[in-house]
Amino acid sequence: MLQVRMTGLCRPNRAKISGIFGRGDMKLYLDSGRAPNPRRVRIFLAEKGVTLPTEAVDLGGQAHKTAAYRAINPMQRLPALVLDDGTVIAESIAICRYIEALHREPPLFGEGALEQALVEMWQRRVEFHLLTVVSHVFRHLHPAMAPLEVPQVAAWGEANKPRVLAFLEFLDGELAGRPYVAGPRFTVADITAVVAVDFMKPAKIAVPEDLAALRRWHAEVSARPSVAKER
Amino acid sequence: MLQVRMTGLCRPNRAKISGIFGRGDMKLYLDSGRAPNPRRVRIFLAEKGVTLPTEAVDLGGQAHKTAAYRAINPMQRLPALVLDDGTVIAESIAICRYIEALHREPPLFGEGALEQALVEMWQRRVEFHLLTVVSHVFRHLHPAMAPLEVPQVAAWGEANKPRVLAFLEFLDGELAGRPYVAGPRFTVADITAVVAVDFMKPAKIAVPEDLAALRRWHAEVSARPSVAKER
Repeated sequence: MLQVRMTGLCRPNRAKISGIFGRGDMKLYLDSGRAPNPRRVRIFLAEKGVTLPTEAVDLGGQAHKTAAYRAINPMQRLPALVLDDGTVIAESIAICRYIEALHREPPLFGEGALEQALVEMWQRRVEFHLLTVVSHVFRHLHPAMAPLEVPQVAAWGEANKPRVLAFLEFLDGELAGRPYVAGPRFTVADITAVVAVDFMKPAKIAVPEDLAALRRWHAEVSARPSVAKER
Repeated sequence: MLQVRMTGLCRPNRAKISGIFGRGDMKLYLDSGRAPNPRRVRIFLAEKGVTLPTEAVDLGGQAHKTAAYRAINPMQRLPALVLDDGTVIAESIAICRYIEALHREPPLFGEGALEQALVEMWQRRVEFHLLTVVSHVFRHLHPAMAPLEVPQVAAWGEANKPRVLAFLEFLDGELAGRPYVAGPRFTVADITAVVAVDFMKPAKIAVPEDLAALRRWHAEVSARPSVAKER
């Protein structure tokens, strides 16, 4: 059963999304565990108060590499959102943008040209210079990832460790001057950032004690119901 | 001299961007050569018919690592757009989104919730699974990159070569069924894709002869004035 609150949608959007109230085949494919990208979408949906029908795909059992799932997403990645008419939206941030277009409040990608550009900038900075970098450490150094990351290149995993810490120091300096990653309010950039910082634990990288602003931000964001629930 | 055509802008946007017609301090920092990310923004601006005052930063001479440039973009990356009031928008796609918000025609990020989500999905697929992957090959295997990519990890460069070809095969299958990467019209996903394919040359990876749909698409996109001019 699809539940999308319609508050705040103007008529053109209402018309565009009428299809999703059709046969009810819309489905969000997520993992069965704690992979970072599905978690980003889970937190985003919780912030929006939107519930979608979901199906779990077992990453550990490599269910994302089966023919059945490759027919949904040839890139063999999670999450993926299948609409009523069979159209597939893959890529976490593309799914989040689609949800934002259907359900604008609260605006997690910002409002107006300038704020939206700054949120995009910070979302990308955090994604490329933190989440991706932590992922390289995890995927190339964790023994459990050997069957999934072929070949594991340990030297590449090691090369990324100091980059994680360098970016955290930079982010700490930024967070000393404002409450959230992209500015005065919580946005999708905070979602990517908190998922990345939490992903440091399985990647076996500690958050330095002296990054006070980063720790203040992390504690506040982690206390949000969306982030606390979607672990 | 800033030139932004105002066609198609509604009143709220006109109000929001009034500042950029002020003191004229807006400036786009680009490279002095042929780096892929600045090229994406150059092509995007040419497609929009927008001209901005620019300043070249010499990547080869490591001018992006100087204190002067780090004050603009602490990530030490190009391009960066400095607005009249000193606000900095970094990240190619964030700059492109800002330009799109100011100048909507032609819509290079799509129109409406669904098309915009699909353009975002393809832009990201091409960026992460082609442009980034080609970059890893180039940065970790090309001798000229040794001073900039520290440490170079040759095994990681080699690991990415087959990924380039696997993604191109997938993209070839997609392009057999439609004219452009994300659908029936040229979008920012095509810009990222053509820049990535052209970046294969310095990365010393050949486009396989048998990928007919990819070659048809590449020839058509390369003939566009924006792409042909911004080499």
